[in-house]
Amino acid sequence: MSLTLCYFPLKGAAEISRLIFAYTGEKYEDKRITSEEWKAGEKAKSPTGGQPMILLEGGEVYSQSMAIARYLANKFDLAGKSGEEKLHADMVVDAIKSDMAQSLMKAYFEKDEERKTAFAGEAKEKINTMLELLEKNCVKGDGTFLASGTSWADLMFYNFMTDVVPLANASMSAGVTLDATPKLKAIHDKVQENPNIKKWIEARPQTQF
Amino acid sequence: MSLTLCYFPLKGAAEISRLIFAYTGEKYEDKRITSEEWKAGEKAKSPTGGQPMILLEGGEVYSQSMAIARYLANKFDLAGKSGEEKLHADMVVDAIKSDMAQSLMKAYFEKDEERKTAFAGEAKEKINTMLELLEKNCVKGDGTFLASGTSWADLMFYNFMTDVVPLANASMSAGVTLDATPKLKAIHDKVQENPNIKKWIEARPQTQF
Repeated sequence: MSLTLCYFPLKGAAEISRLIFAYTGEKYEDKRITSEEWKAGEKAKSPTGGQPMILLEGGEVYSQSMAIARYLANKFDLAGKSGEEKLHADMVVDAIKSDMAQSLMKAYFEKDEERKTAFAGEAKEKINTMLELLEKNCVKGDGTFLASGTSWADLMFYNFMTDVVPLANASMSAGVTLDATPKLKAIHDKVQENPNIKKWIEARPQTQF
Repeated sequence: MSLTLCYFPLKGAAEISRLIFAYTGEKYEDKRITSEEWKAGEKAKSPTGGQPMILLEGGEVYSQSMAIARYLANKFDLAGKSGEEKLHADMVVDAIKSDMAQSLMKAYFEKDEERKTAFAGEAKEKINTMLELLEKNCVKGDGTFLASGTSWADLMFYNFMTDVVPLANASMSAGVTLDATPKLKAIHDKVQENPNIKKWIEARPQTQF
């Protein structure tokens, strides 16, 4: 029995885990749970009440998106080759997730127009600042964040640029590009050109989020 | 040379790492950086622009609070004994940090009174739900989240109950207690009664946050 990843029929918080499966070519079940199924009984299976969930070979179920993605990264050798590399990858992942993506999502989902405009401005500034910092301080390899090669931090960055930034650029003119950050662009392109990733991007269900 | 943990003169996002140092008895420099020092030059040292930062023996600097805490947990054998235990600890830590603490902080720092009241209500509900879920699904050991014994997830839970919840209870009558969750109370008490933790709690600088 292989691993089962459960999530709504969305990219969202599960896509980083799906990208890890895609990149490594590891087999898994990509189980997509509708809101109705979720409410009707699936929710009760989640240890902390949310999705994504991962069902392991032995039947244990775990939740929390980044915990799951890090588990897969460790299991499939994409977490870093030493404690310090794992710290470096975690640092980059948290900068992307907590600092960049979260500030965009905050603006994206705000309903009050005045606040939305203010949040969008803050998000844009935060993202541009963080892209500069990542470019300057965090790229240790040749087209990879880690000196040792591709890690889940690269996949997380690709996920952010591919699945989050376009929403922000279209809906709030965020204008986020990698034109001024060639090292980050190289990381993005290296993931994008990977044959396994290409195959997944073509094959994956098309969803807005 | 030992490790140096840098943060503002606050408990905040660095206290989980300080608790890991305290519990394990590992030596480190607890460097507290004022806002003035931060702006005057320390900020430029942070790879992703924020605090806490950790300075390793070799001189490398890393940032992002949870990445640092996880690094220390791995280094000092508090992260879990297997990939699955590490996933379990990460899941609990994320539930505490992203679901519980963040919803409280959102309400705490909101300036608009109407929104603050709404956010406080949401936070209270979210926390009570999560405490129930953690109690029911996530306690695998005897007074510890992991079957193998104390981990940084226990320290994170103690940190939340000791350093975050009292602020919320005092300022927004959140009324968060562990009365209905005896297993979580046992985890909290086991950390609280640890002699190294006791010593740290008595010795640490007194700060509101």
